[in-house]
Amino acid sequence: MSAASLPYSHEIDGCLSSGDHGVGLAAQSLATYLDRAAPAFDEMQAAIAHKSLAVLTICQKKDDIEACGPVADHLLADTTDLVFLGTGGSSLGAQTLAQLAGYGIPGYVPRGGQPRAHFFDNLDVTSLGQALARLDLKTTRFLVVSKSGSTVETLAQTLAVVAALRTEMSDADLGRHFAVITKKGDNSLRGFATEFLKCPILEHEADIPGRFSVLSNVGLLPALCLGLDPHALRAGAAQVLDHLVKATKPADSAPVLGAALSLGLAQENKITSSVLMPYSDRLDLFAMWYRQLWAESLGKNGKGTTPIKALGPVDQHSQLQLYLDGPADKLFTLIIANTAGQGPAFDAQLTRQAGVDYLTGRTMGDLVTASHRATADTLIGKGRPVRLLRIETLNEFTLGALFMHFMLET
Amino acid sequence: MSAASLPYSHEIDGCLSSGDHGVGLAAQSLATYLDRAAPAFDEMQAAIAHKSLAVLTICQKKDDIEACGPVADHLLADTTDLVFLGTGGSSLGAQTLAQLAGYGIPGYVPRGGQPRAHFFDNLDVTSLGQALARLDLKTTRFLVVSKSGSTVETLAQTLAVVAALRTEMSDADLGRHFAVITKKGDNSLRGFATEFLKCPILEHEADIPGRFSVLSNVGLLPALCLGLDPHALRAGAAQVLDHLVKATKPADSAPVLGAALSLGLAQENKITSSVLMPYSDRLDLFAMWYRQLWAESLGKNGKGTTPIKALGPVDQHSQLQLYLDGPADKLFTLIIANTAGQGPAFDAQLTRQAGVDYLTGRTMGDLVTASHRATADTLIGKGRPVRLLRIETLNEFTLGALFMHFMLET
Repeated sequence: MSAASLPYSHEIDGCLSSGDHGVGLAAQSLATYLDRAAPAFDEMQAAIAHKSLAVLTICQKKDDIEACGPVADHLLADTTDLVFLGTGGSSLGAQTLAQLAGYGIPGYVPRGGQPRAHFFDNLDVTSLGQALARLDLKTTRFLVVSKSGSTVETLAQTLAVVAALRTEMSDADLGRHFAVITKKGDNSLRGFATEFLKCPILEHEADIPGRFSVLSNVGLLPALCLGLDPHALRAGAAQVLDHLVKATKPADSAPVLGAALSLGLAQENKITSSVLMPYSDRLDLFAMWYRQLWAESLGKNGKGTTPIKALGPVDQHSQLQLYLDGPADKLFTLIIANTAGQGPAFDAQLTRQAGVDYLTGRTMGDLVTASHRATADTLIGKGRPVRLLRIETLNEFTLGALFMHFMLET
Repeated sequence: MSAASLPYSHEIDGCLSSGDHGVGLAAQSLATYLDRAAPAFDEMQAAIAHKSLAVLTICQKKDDIEACGPVADHLLADTTDLVFLGTGGSSLGAQTLAQLAGYGIPGYVPRGGQPRAHFFDNLDVTSLGQALARLDLKTTRFLVVSKSGSTVETLAQTLAVVAALRTEMSDADLGRHFAVITKKGDNSLRGFATEFLKCPILEHEADIPGRFSVLSNVGLLPALCLGLDPHALRAGAAQVLDHLVKATKPADSAPVLGAALSLGLAQENKITSSVLMPYSDRLDLFAMWYRQLWAESLGKNGKGTTPIKALGPVDQHSQLQLYLDGPADKLFTLIIANTAGQGPAFDAQLTRQAGVDYLTGRTMGDLVTASHRATADTLIGKGRPVRLLRIETLNEFTLGALFMHFMLET
């Protein structure tokens, strides 16, 4: 892979009326929208070259990852359960990363030696109290994230946790159980952490809004705690920037092309919804992360396409009827890892016993591959625009690249 | 509560231009759509009275619940982990019920003595294999559900499980680990269960499609295994039918009124999406269940509103920007349990320490209440139609009623 190649492929043939399938935006329209994207493209190139945007330059930082190390050690000392308090952008990026380590996957059992992760991003009258009653609080640790330090849900949850801990330990022991990420300067959370909890505090990047914070310590401290490689994550994101800065025109940059395509389809083809449908359990929460990124960024002035989260193949059994026979108002983006031939092959004796001889010698990965191919073909056959983002393998590097792609495209 | 009262309230004032807020459908239009719903209303009343629809008469059955008992005992004998294999409608109803017992809730730890539930409704190259490698297979049991008995994903997963079990036990022990629900007559799953697994089999109701199967043994066997009361669930659903059959006109039936309202808003007010937003972690998967019910039933002939799942209050931090300032093309249905005053009150010392004195004496439930009120008011204030479904407490009875409401409305 050359330095300027992308860690994923971006295939838009299924979204162009000039493409093999004749579905979607006219080539002339795409050219128009790409022309309009030229100033944004130039700005992005300049921002990368001049390191003027914190959301992008974060990919080059190293000292903040080093600063995460001791805090991760603090959170992992003698720990069975790791609880994350925070909401919206302060939680979804970390959840997406945690999913790479198994969190939120059916049958999630932490890898040997790792704590079990729990994310409380919603305010609920029962959930937190019930968990606090059932968890072993002596071996449970809490990471509290709020950029402003004044998010009422997060503060309320923190107080509920402290009240529960105090039934089992003295105030002097509380600091062992907590770490906090919040911005510099006076705020409620920082004051409480400094004066009362006496726990470690990391600085939230001042110039990075919550919804873009996944590549900052907000995402990387949880990643580190769950055994992931934060450097690889940033390297994947950096490679997308490197590719963009070397592009000679807007159409050569996948995120700019994607943005122009989305806008063109919305305005010329009445596409009002954007369905993100990964074919991997480990990208289920990525689609949730995308949903908040997109909705927070683009829902303005009575406009904006509505982001919709889906998951393949399972939603073929739940949503495909609507996607195929409902209104033609959706763009479908499938994210696909190469799964062909992966997983163990089905045993010939068992397939015969079960009367599914056609599975003999095939693997679970072959079935996933067959599923996304069939779905893409069927959607396009019905005149629904489909684009494909392909990665070879899902790991920290490619996930970092996907994060950056969608942050740039938004 | 009288025999004919509903276990929930259905408030549509925020969807009518004649209402206090002047948002939504004109009263005259609603009357027109209610008139058009009259034949469907009459049919439903007749179907309930004459017990001619399996989806409805299932609420009166008892023998099938009795038949679930021994199978539940079989699945629970010496069991730490209970794995559910099935996809689409064969899984989502059971998942929704399991959530009432804690499944899929942040910080889920099974109640003392209960097995941990795992649902594999997606085909993924990694998830199942990884779980099988980490679970203690000797104390893990599997319930396999496929109405047709030929769902390839479910069969493939079953074969993968059997291959893993055979590395630890003889074929004669396999039957202890499985139970199956499938329709009568020859099919692959039934053949495999009878001849090879030698495990208990329950009949899938012949006249109930998967997406409506939650009140059959497909939902009730999992409910029973997880300590829920299947009779209360059906009683809640039955009360909705009882209310409908006693209604003297379409407008008196909440599901018929809801259906007329949805259709009217779609056709007169260009509402193309329907957002279901419960304010309870325990209804998060209910919104997923609703999404498949709606999409499978109503996405036809280039029409159909798109169902969107949301969760409150957390999505206020992620989706509200879009809901308020994006296109006015959505109907919002908030499901609200009475949480005011619930949960422990915040400690005055802690709220002072954290600089959030305004929380003193309030409870987590008060915050949830304040959140949904503010969201409903803000949406209506921006001209977005909002309806409210209120229950007093979420339990088997009210959940059964909500299932039936949405099955009838669809």
